[in-house]
Amino acid sequence: MKSLDGNAVRTQRTRQRILARALELFNEQGEANVATGAIAASLGISPGNLYYHFRRKDAIVAELFHRFEQRIDVEPAPASSPAAAIEDLWLYLHLMLEAIWEFRFLYRGLDDLVERDRKLRESFNRIAQHKLDAVTRLCEGLVRSGAMRASREEIRALSRNVLVVATYWLSFQALRRRPGPIEDGLGHGAYQVMALVAPFLVGEAREHLDELSRAYID
Amino acid sequence: MKSLDGNAVRTQRTRQRILARALELFNEQGEANVATGAIAASLGISPGNLYYHFRRKDAIVAELFHRFEQRIDVEPAPASSPAAAIEDLWLYLHLMLEAIWEFRFLYRGLDDLVERDRKLRESFNRIAQHKLDAVTRLCEGLVRSGAMRASREEIRALSRNVLVVATYWLSFQALRRRPGPIEDGLGHGAYQVMALVAPFLVGEAREHLDELSRAYID
Repeated sequence: MKSLDGNAVRTQRTRQRILARALELFNEQGEANVATGAIAASLGISPGNLYYHFRRKDAIVAELFHRFEQRIDVEPAPASSPAAAIEDLWLYLHLMLEAIWEFRFLYRGLDDLVERDRKLRESFNRIAQHKLDAVTRLCEGLVRSGAMRASREEIRALSRNVLVVATYWLSFQALRRRPGPIEDGLGHGAYQVMALVAPFLVGEAREHLDELSRAYID
Repeated sequence: MKSLDGNAVRTQRTRQRILARALELFNEQGEANVATGAIAASLGISPGNLYYHFRRKDAIVAELFHRFEQRIDVEPAPASSPAAAIEDLWLYLHLMLEAIWEFRFLYRGLDDLVERDRKLRESFNRIAQHKLDAVTRLCEGLVRSGAMRASREEIRALSRNVLVVATYWLSFQALRRRPGPIEDGLGHGAYQVMALVAPFLVGEAREHLDELSRAYID
């Protein structure tokens, strides 16, 4: 790593501040309703300074999407026991919903964003395919360890439903505008996704999930 | 019903044409990207004529939403047997997805629409609550007739998941831009929702669903 002089450090810091503020404003007001000028004004920097870092708003969106993609690209590790696998899955869902919440502006205007930008559509589809594959592998692992009973076709349909519910749960809650802190929303989302998986679990894994769910319901 | 003179009939016809064309354009381009002027131009009528019928675009959106609400407000009738109940449910889901498809612009910009219009949010929530109640009642009926085994809490979580998957399935497919005619998308959506219900079915109902699903998969 080459050492940075004072100017380069300042430049980097400004870039980071632009991205952080853009994310805040996009989440609050929707990406379509926030102009680059408003981001610059909100940071107290000149439009020219912002332009030096990002020529177009699309470049800011692309960089934020890239961060989202890195953020959501985690996978549950192979677990030592069925009960551990269930706990890992629950945690994994929580992290995934947290990432969606943190970058919720992407989901809010998703149709328009991918309509405008072919690369974003491809990125989104790459994420979706990764997630589908990850959930499918996870289920196959549970079947092999005897913790799940499900056919190939059931796992395919289940994986798709896991992805749809995880992707849209927070949007659905926002529409219904349920009161309560966001942590509750994330927990509820994870619970809803686990409810998709539950009927296919047997033995220890099922018992463990029921316990975790009871703790959630109470 | 009072008889209408020629002028009144023409006025009614123009109103209907405006609504039909607005729906087309909103679905194709997104409601936010279609101005009332474009609707008038596309029909070959003057902006003043359109203004006579609808003072603001919001009035067109509200009327279309009202039609959507009537369209989607169907419920599966109590069925004579578990197998009949499953067929009715499948058909019901198909009709629901068809209505969502027909008014897909509402779902595309839903967050922004309900943000802008408190009444639309209330209407949307009324529809969502009706659907949740209808699915819950349907499941309770299946439990009573011995076609389903599920606890109260399982039915609650299941009903929410049915609603989320039915609501967002077509959006999810559009994002992934799966090739194929829309009928396939609707059929696949109904199949995905039935896959949520399937694990809780027993006996004749379960067998009948498996048969219907096999026909779908092949």
